[in-house]
Amino acid sequence: MEQASLRDLNEPLIDHAEGQFFLNEAFKIIMEEVLSNGTDVKQKVCEWKEPEELALLLDLGVRETGEPRDKLLQRVRDVAKYSVKTSHPHFFNQQYGGVDYHSLAGRFLTEALNTNLFTYEAAPVFVLMENEVLRGLRQLVGWTEGDGIFCPGGSTSNMYAMNLARYQRFPEVKSQGVWALPRLSIFTSPESHYSVKKGAAFLGIGLDNIIFVKVDDRGRLIPEDLDEKIELSKSQGAVPFLVSCMSGTTVQGVFDPLDHIADICDKHKLWMHVDACWGGSVPFSKKHRHLMKGVDRANSVAWNPHKMLVAGLQCSALLLKDTTNLLKQCHSANATYLFQQDKFYDVNLDIGDKSVQCSRKVDCLKLWLMWKAVGSMGLEERVDKAFIHARYLVEQMKKREGFQLLSMVAPVIKERMMKQGTMMVGYQPLGNKVNFFRVTVFSPLLSQKDMDFFLDEIERLGKDL
Amino acid sequence: MEQASLRDLNEPLIDHAEGQFFLNEAFKIIMEEVLSNGTDVKQKVCEWKEPEELALLLDLGVRETGEPRDKLLQRVRDVAKYSVKTSHPHFFNQQYGGVDYHSLAGRFLTEALNTNLFTYEAAPVFVLMENEVLRGLRQLVGWTEGDGIFCPGGSTSNMYAMNLARYQRFPEVKSQGVWALPRLSIFTSPESHYSVKKGAAFLGIGLDNIIFVKVDDRGRLIPEDLDEKIELSKSQGAVPFLVSCMSGTTVQGVFDPLDHIADICDKHKLWMHVDACWGGSVPFSKKHRHLMKGVDRANSVAWNPHKMLVAGLQCSALLLKDTTNLLKQCHSANATYLFQQDKFYDVNLDIGDKSVQCSRKVDCLKLWLMWKAVGSMGLEERVDKAFIHARYLVEQMKKREGFQLLSMVAPVIKERMMKQGTMMVGYQPLGNKVNFFRVTVFSPLLSQKDMDFFLDEIERLGKDL
Repeated sequence: MEQASLRDLNEPLIDHAEGQFFLNEAFKIIMEEVLSNGTDVKQKVCEWKEPEELALLLDLGVRETGEPRDKLLQRVRDVAKYSVKTSHPHFFNQQYGGVDYHSLAGRFLTEALNTNLFTYEAAPVFVLMENEVLRGLRQLVGWTEGDGIFCPGGSTSNMYAMNLARYQRFPEVKSQGVWALPRLSIFTSPESHYSVKKGAAFLGIGLDNIIFVKVDDRGRLIPEDLDEKIELSKSQGAVPFLVSCMSGTTVQGVFDPLDHIADICDKHKLWMHVDACWGGSVPFSKKHRHLMKGVDRANSVAWNPHKMLVAGLQCSALLLKDTTNLLKQCHSANATYLFQQDKFYDVNLDIGDKSVQCSRKVDCLKLWLMWKAVGSMGLEERVDKAFIHARYLVEQMKKREGFQLLSMVAPVIKERMMKQGTMMVGYQPLGNKVNFFRVTVFSPLLSQKDMDFFLDEIERLGKDL
Repeated sequence: MEQASLRDLNEPLIDHAEGQFFLNEAFKIIMEEVLSNGTDVKQKVCEWKEPEELALLLDLGVRETGEPRDKLLQRVRDVAKYSVKTSHPHFFNQQYGGVDYHSLAGRFLTEALNTNLFTYEAAPVFVLMENEVLRGLRQLVGWTEGDGIFCPGGSTSNMYAMNLARYQRFPEVKSQGVWALPRLSIFTSPESHYSVKKGAAFLGIGLDNIIFVKVDDRGRLIPEDLDEKIELSKSQGAVPFLVSCMSGTTVQGVFDPLDHIADICDKHKLWMHVDACWGGSVPFSKKHRHLMKGVDRANSVAWNPHKMLVAGLQCSALLLKDTTNLLKQCHSANATYLFQQDKFYDVNLDIGDKSVQCSRKVDCLKLWLMWKAVGSMGLEERVDKAFIHARYLVEQMKKREGFQLLSMVAPVIKERMMKQGTMMVGYQPLGNKVNFFRVTVFSPLLSQKDMDFFLDEIERLGKDL
């Protein structure tokens, strides 16, 4: 009998008591290793191991039989130990450092509920909540109506904007493909995020059809050059359809002059997309929102609250000014097993067909709970403090003798820093310049003494170089 | 002075003690509401509310000021209360029901670590772990080498396969776009997942260039018709480049005859992609792996462990036979701020450029920890039990008088079921047939009496119809 090798059919394969005990123990380890030790400036940011050594330590291979509880809990501890502590105040490496406990509670709840955001029936709370959070974000952009969706990361949000811009201009692309269209061209600055390239390649538009507009000496896109390049592209037989500009460039944090760019987009009737994944949170700040003046004139905005607002990876909103249901028209496939039209509730609440995903994680709860916890004023404070820290850092660097923004020795300093585990910060070349360190200082866990630590530590690590 | 409105600069904006207390309390609510009550058959699967009523109950609007701890904890409780309990044994609605506590511990740890999977420096543990998990999955497919990546859902995995197939045949598409290519055609069955359509539209190939191959009376793609349609498409001037076939169709769970399809793909030199998002777990089972015989001859396989293996949303692997680094060549943009070539470790471990995402969540840990906990044998048991439950259900339905697979009254029964909250199951039309219920019965929490409950409940809800 085929059931012989299986346990009794009336006994589930999951033991709830044992499972919940395990989860409780794992939670304690997370609290201790990741959230207490992992945010303690007296502890290391990373525990560097060479890949071969780490693979051995972790014993990663999967096997036929399972392992006992204690061994599994040790694995939880090991994963925590050897992972980078991205919430540590000395993690200056990327734009997702820091932690917010309300957001994290929202993330744990999201995982436990294991909900797919496609229909009201399957996700009643989150369909309404996403709608409300998007409304709140749009309001900050300056729109009283519109549309939007949370995407798995900013690159996807930017790609969605590209697809929407193309579809709005040439709806036949959905059925006939790019062959039915004239050659298109996209305009962006060389400082823009690499997702413009990835999007153009993925969507079948091609890297050669991205036209890079000149930037000024501070890295801002020059509207006059944009205008000229658009004219030039037209004269060469292409059809410009999209300008993708930046609020907060990836490397330097530069804000393009949106108002002037909007004038050019108006003139040529082009879709204006603002990649505000990094800088998008400045509208929370009365002091800094001028940096995005004109954003309300855009057609779409990509904004990652998992960056400056510390909502946790991933949380990326694509906001749209559109009120014609473009998102759904562009992306829908009308699958009958999900989006039945004879339901007993308003099927406009079945938002899944706005996405090119089918499984779509709930990314709104963590932001919503954090927003409820600290209010818009609390988020404003975070933005303002990030600017103050950045300004302080620049001032102090200027004061310190021998301290230079650019450094030939960045890779060596970086290696020493990683192996000692004292802090993490990224470096990179810029244009024809040599390497420099790109410090991100927005985490709400940061204090001014962490800025001083950063400077002291760079000096210490590089003093013999 | 601008700092006046801000708190002391040496005081972080996050209060760790308060934050950790909150997280602890939220964790207790999650354990109680979601994992204990939420999996208890004596409790409801859903607490149905009309959208307007629910919006009022939840008070979703965000405001200027934050809220006190108790109010926020009540919000956590409310979100849990009004959300669908997808782990409940009577949630038969979609292919992500059920819970695994080890996986969930991995998910909480993932969230707390907040890691972006792009470089070894930022994600040392997870770069190695993803590699190992992908190796384990590839082995089940029958490949001793190859490549792969975790994607945000199966639709994205399928889209990646489409882009890779196109790029391998016509690498110039990356720079020049689709205009440089002859008109392409894609072959799939009408039973395939809607992501083939979404992918073709998104990638600029167009819905009209998808050619639907006939299926037999059980819903399996007919290889002879595939061969004919490929010939026909060629004769019409198109260039066939991809066959996307199914292991576990979305609605009926049908497995296409992969071995025969591979013969046709070999003959015409087409990329063979297997969408095994749903059925991909059968290779764990010695009894059922024959359903995917020939899968090793494919070029790519999409497989969602968040479905039959209950790894939790989202966990979708794209597996590739390719050993030429096609994934990276196709998707890379070589951003200098992440993928510096002068690093002090092997930069081949910086896997981020294989993705079209920049922020990419860690989706391997939950599967790895679960796999370590129950072993391949434990996962085999889950697959086998899912088949036994499904077979039992069919047998019992045949025995019950008046019980029919197809039902004119599905929408009415569904409405009653949702409003009473006793269980959830999806319905849909199939071809020219009226609605029927699509029951998913793979959760490791299920027992045979849940199958009996399902049948009794359908009878009870529909007895007056």
